[in-house]
Amino acid sequence: MAHIALDNDLPGISGLLANRPDTAEPLGHLVEVLLRGPSPLPRGERELIAAYVSRLNATPFCAGSHGAFAAAQLSGGEALVAAVLADPDTAPVTPLTRALLRIAAEVQSAAAPVSDEALAAARAEGAGDTEIHDTVLIASAFCMYNRYVSGLSTRIPDAAYYRESAKRVVAHGYRGLGAGAGAGV
Amino acid sequence: MAHIALDNDLPGISGLLANRPDTAEPLGHLVEVLLRGPSPLPRGERELIAAYVSRLNATPFCAGSHGAFAAAQLSGGEALVAAVLADPDTAPVTPLTRALLRIAAEVQSAAAPVSDEALAAARAEGAGDTEIHDTVLIASAFCMYNRYVSGLSTRIPDAAYYRESAKRVVAHGYRGLGAGAGAGV
Repeated sequence: MAHIALDNDLPGISGLLANRPDTAEPLGHLVEVLLRGPSPLPRGERELIAAYVSRLNATPFCAGSHGAFAAAQLSGGEALVAAVLADPDTAPVTPLTRALLRIAAEVQSAAAPVSDEALAAARAEGAGDTEIHDTVLIASAFCMYNRYVSGLSTRIPDAAYYRESAKRVVAHGYRGLGAGAGAGV
Repeated sequence: MAHIALDNDLPGISGLLANRPDTAEPLGHLVEVLLRGPSPLPRGERELIAAYVSRLNATPFCAGSHGAFAAAQLSGGEALVAAVLADPDTAPVTPLTRALLRIAAEVQSAAAPVSDEALAAARAEGAGDTEIHDTVLIASAFCMYNRYVSGLSTRIPDAAYYRESAKRVVAHGYRGLGAGAGAGV
C-alpha cells in the first residue's frame, strides 16, 4: 500500500499521475521530450539509459517499465536489456552506448561533475555535446522519477504489466498518461 | 567552464535552460507547479525544502538560488535559511516544517520508501497526504535539478546574483526563464 491515499488503484507512477493532474502534466511532458523527442540518441537507447539508472536506484517499477520500452525498440530485445541491467561492461552494446551508460551511472551516484575520464571516453566514441547533455538529463530525471515512485512506496505490478504498457507507450508516447491509461514512467 | 558548449554565458541552470528550450519548457513548468502552484505548503516553505535538498546534494547554485527565494518569502529571512541549511534540528522552524525537512532528507539520500517513523512524525504535526506528496516530489525534483546543474559543471555566480534573481522569481515566477532572464532554478 502506498504511503498516501490515491484516488485509483494503478501501480507505480501511474497511480500518482492519475491522482495529481497538476504535477502529472509537466512530469509527462518532460519524459516525452527526454525519451521520445528529437535527439541524436535513438529512442531505444534512451529507454535503456532510463532503465539502467532505475535499476541502479533499485526502483523495480521504473526499471521494469523502461526496460520493457527499451526491449520493444532495440533489436536485442529483452535479452539485451537484461544483459545491460546486469552489467553494461559485458553487455553486447556499442562502445558509445557503454560510455554513455558510464556517464549515467556517475550522475546517478551523486550530484557532482561527470568525470573528465568518462566525458573523454564518450567523446572518443563519437558523443557530442547533445548526446552528453541528453544522457545527463535523462539520468538526472530518473533520479527524480525513481525517488517519487519509491519514496511514496507505490505498488509494483506483475511483469506482464510492463509488456502491455510498452505497446501503448511505443505507439502513442507518454503524454496524457495517468488518466487511467496505466502506462508507466 | 561547463562540460558542454552553451550558446550563452548564464550561470547554473539558467545557461542550460536558455541553451535547450525543448527541455527548458517542462523543467520550468514543473518547478513553477511545485514551488508556486496550489499547495497547503506556503511558497517560502517549499523554497526552503528545495534549498535544503540542494545543500545536501552540494549544489551551490541551486542552494543559493532557492535559499534566496525562500529568504525573500519567509519572515525569518536569510538568517532563518542559513540556520536551516546548517542544521534543521536546531533551526527556529515549526515542528511541521522540521518533520517535512526530515522526509526531504530521506528522499535525497536514496530512492527508497520514506520511513514509517518520518511519516508518523509529520502526520503527528498536522501533515496530510498532500503535504507529504508535495514534499516528496519537491525533494525528488531537486535531486534531478541538482544533478543536471552539477553533473554538467555549470558556472557558479557570486552571491549578489541570487538576490537579484529572487526579485524576479518572487514577482513573476519561473515560467519563461532561460530566455536570457537569468533567474535560477
